[in-house]
Amino acid sequence: MNYEEYLQTHEAEHLAELFELLRFPSISALSGHKADILQTAEYLRTQLEQLGFSRAELLPTRGNPVVYAEWMGAVGKPTVLVYGHYDVQPVDPLELWTTPPFEPTIRDGKIYARGASDDKGQVFMHLKALQALLVTDGSLPVNIKFCIEGEEEIGSAHLPEFLEQNAERFAADVLLISDTGMLGPNQPTICYGLRGLAAVQIDVTTANSDLHSGLFGGAVPNAVHALVELLGTLHDTDGRVLVDGFYDQVADVSPEERAEFHALDHNDETYRNALGLSALHGEPGYSTLERLWVRPTLEINGIYGGFQGEGTKTVIPREAHAKITCRLVPNQNPEDILRRLEDHVKQHAPTGAKISITRHDSGHPYVTPFTHPAIQLAAKAYEQAYGVTASFTRGGGSIPIVEVFDRLLHIPVVLMGFALPDENFHAPNEHFSIENFRLGMRTLCHYYLGLPNALAD
Amino acid sequence: MNYEEYLQTHEAEHLAELFELLRFPSISALSGHKADILQTAEYLRTQLEQLGFSRAELLPTRGNPVVYAEWMGAVGKPTVLVYGHYDVQPVDPLELWTTPPFEPTIRDGKIYARGASDDKGQVFMHLKALQALLVTDGSLPVNIKFCIEGEEEIGSAHLPEFLEQNAERFAADVLLISDTGMLGPNQPTICYGLRGLAAVQIDVTTANSDLHSGLFGGAVPNAVHALVELLGTLHDTDGRVLVDGFYDQVADVSPEERAEFHALDHNDETYRNALGLSALHGEPGYSTLERLWVRPTLEINGIYGGFQGEGTKTVIPREAHAKITCRLVPNQNPEDILRRLEDHVKQHAPTGAKISITRHDSGHPYVTPFTHPAIQLAAKAYEQAYGVTASFTRGGGSIPIVEVFDRLLHIPVVLMGFALPDENFHAPNEHFSIENFRLGMRTLCHYYLGLPNALAD
Repeated sequence: MNYEEYLQTHEAEHLAELFELLRFPSISALSGHKADILQTAEYLRTQLEQLGFSRAELLPTRGNPVVYAEWMGAVGKPTVLVYGHYDVQPVDPLELWTTPPFEPTIRDGKIYARGASDDKGQVFMHLKALQALLVTDGSLPVNIKFCIEGEEEIGSAHLPEFLEQNAERFAADVLLISDTGMLGPNQPTICYGLRGLAAVQIDVTTANSDLHSGLFGGAVPNAVHALVELLGTLHDTDGRVLVDGFYDQVADVSPEERAEFHALDHNDETYRNALGLSALHGEPGYSTLERLWVRPTLEINGIYGGFQGEGTKTVIPREAHAKITCRLVPNQNPEDILRRLEDHVKQHAPTGAKISITRHDSGHPYVTPFTHPAIQLAAKAYEQAYGVTASFTRGGGSIPIVEVFDRLLHIPVVLMGFALPDENFHAPNEHFSIENFRLGMRTLCHYYLGLPNALAD
Repeated sequence: MNYEEYLQTHEAEHLAELFELLRFPSISALSGHKADILQTAEYLRTQLEQLGFSRAELLPTRGNPVVYAEWMGAVGKPTVLVYGHYDVQPVDPLELWTTPPFEPTIRDGKIYARGASDDKGQVFMHLKALQALLVTDGSLPVNIKFCIEGEEEIGSAHLPEFLEQNAERFAADVLLISDTGMLGPNQPTICYGLRGLAAVQIDVTTANSDLHSGLFGGAVPNAVHALVELLGTLHDTDGRVLVDGFYDQVADVSPEERAEFHALDHNDETYRNALGLSALHGEPGYSTLERLWVRPTLEINGIYGGFQGEGTKTVIPREAHAKITCRLVPNQNPEDILRRLEDHVKQHAPTGAKISITRHDSGHPYVTPFTHPAIQLAAKAYEQAYGVTASFTRGGGSIPIVEVFDRLLHIPVVLMGFALPDENFHAPNEHFSIENFRLGMRTLCHYYLGLPNALAD
């Protein structure tokens, strides 16, 4: 039996195992899920051990543990470091899920569950692809090290120092990550750049108590008004960010790169319709793909203050809050952007409001040259599995740890993602295409098998 | 024993009974408290029956029942209709209460509980003042009808049709309401005008799902951005309302009335400090008291959308919501203001956002001439109890039902309130001064006793 036959005959079993992994509510943003985090990590460790990996262990960090395991039997061959994460995003608003987020369900050829595509499903594909190669061939074509972390969804705060302290353990020739997506169904994609991140929370307070809007209304500041006024200074109505110097360090996009984006199969109308939008909206002068890949953003991710219940409550709220993340592109620096944002907030503080701004996570943007053989091989592997030419793209999301790996390990980073744009990463009804689960494992097998020759060239 | 001695010797008992009343969580805005509403009404009905009132009953409305009771033994004397409400505001944010809202507690001579001042405490004073007169004199100087409703905090939606259908039952010579406040400690106040109300909710939706801020950020509308942009068009930074024609119908304030306001003992610095504010904020060109009493407002009472949990969630929210109330002054019309607000929202809808605006409760503003003998007597009654001259003021809050009573019954409305400005109406740690509870009952006794002569003049 070859690995393709193995994957085919074991598919039902693989899906059942993936469902077990998806049932763990490993939400890293909520401290109440600590035990679930540890159970998820232990589940993966056990799986890797049973696969025949050695040194399968949970390595402690100052936060959630890293699942580590290695297979080093391919003497003289390259070593691939496979990175992924076993933590997931929060699930609220829960009422918008058709089926519960931690009860995986198949509908229309899709696996619905939190983490199905981001990133448990994709991590799991590496495990099963490698198992297929091991079982059918008795060994692997390359050496493998796994680094599966539990804090990606909260900014990987503790991983950089952990990697610095364990740099030797993680030494490798290629870093392979499946945590990004494809342009669309049957459009395999190699992502060679990612945006960075800078996150803050803004808190506004006014009076020492909520106040009655009849008795005090008209004469006192309102924390929600102050917040609205402040947030209103962050963009113009076209969507341009108004923070002073926000775009100063943004690298120009070459005409060649723009032309490549234009050649991709993207249609604004299709895109708009798929998202249920009456209009797209973004920085003037750039196409949708440019806005997503090479232009920075400032998004309000959440806002709250005052009364949220049924009906009316006639209060003047004393506090109001907003959560904000910026997506950064080369050569923006998170530290610089955070400082500019803090300055802006100070300069635009409304009358009678105390404003505080707190930094949350941040990460640098990253771009890697797509001429590297480890990256070119990825395109070939996709082509073999999908039967179509793969596209080279950049990604709008952030995997801050990519930049850290690059800095610490100096190895090429290959992003082979299998998620689709409408699979609700971070939103209710996250799902993952079974077709891509199937073809993705074959793609990974092709990639692992081709790597010794590609890197020997 | 005269009524003053009676009130003095029974104070502990009266406080204990008030605490019983305050323990009912009769929140009308939350449908889960329906049973509490009914228990509160029944408690008051029983109290009135035990006091010797006849026809003590719960009168059904299309909403919460009205507590009715009457004492008609003062043949040939005036009839006073006493209006109050037994429902209370919601209590969130619960964590800001020092002691639980429905476990009344005395600290520093103040009763802390939701409803202590608004309005259970003040309703209860009428019951006990009348009891004192009845027990010590064997009868009352005037006829009394009680109308205690259960929907004041949600706009008294069903009371107008109920009053229209029962106008004969509620016929009276004077309407007496204790649901307003005093300017400050030992500053008794007769309020001769109230602001009206117009409430709406604004709902914004964009995409058919929350979206990942990395994968989609920069190219799609964000419901929170759209809401912030829309709300930002409602005021200028000075606090002036920018809704077209909002101020068109506002009645000018006469120089005499302005002069009266100026003569009142109000100090902006003291006021600002008491509220813990770094600055007052309101419509330019008007004093604080003018802003509160004779100028309209538009306040955002609550805002929510996107992620509100711990840490960061990198979503682009698909929906965002705001709750808004306007306080109206003569001669503004709620219907006109609501229409203008709806037009404004339609005209300022941001790109890519679906906006809906839903009307909640509304009420007309009200002013009564303060030369009426029933009102002048109120000042004398305060003077007798407090030993100081009472002030005539207008109120910033709304009791929409005052306007309805006026229209249906054509009788003078006397607002004798005993709450203090810092007693946290509608906010956490609502409380009521025991000193005003004590002096207030005496004031009411003086008023009831003086009324036959005053109205005979």
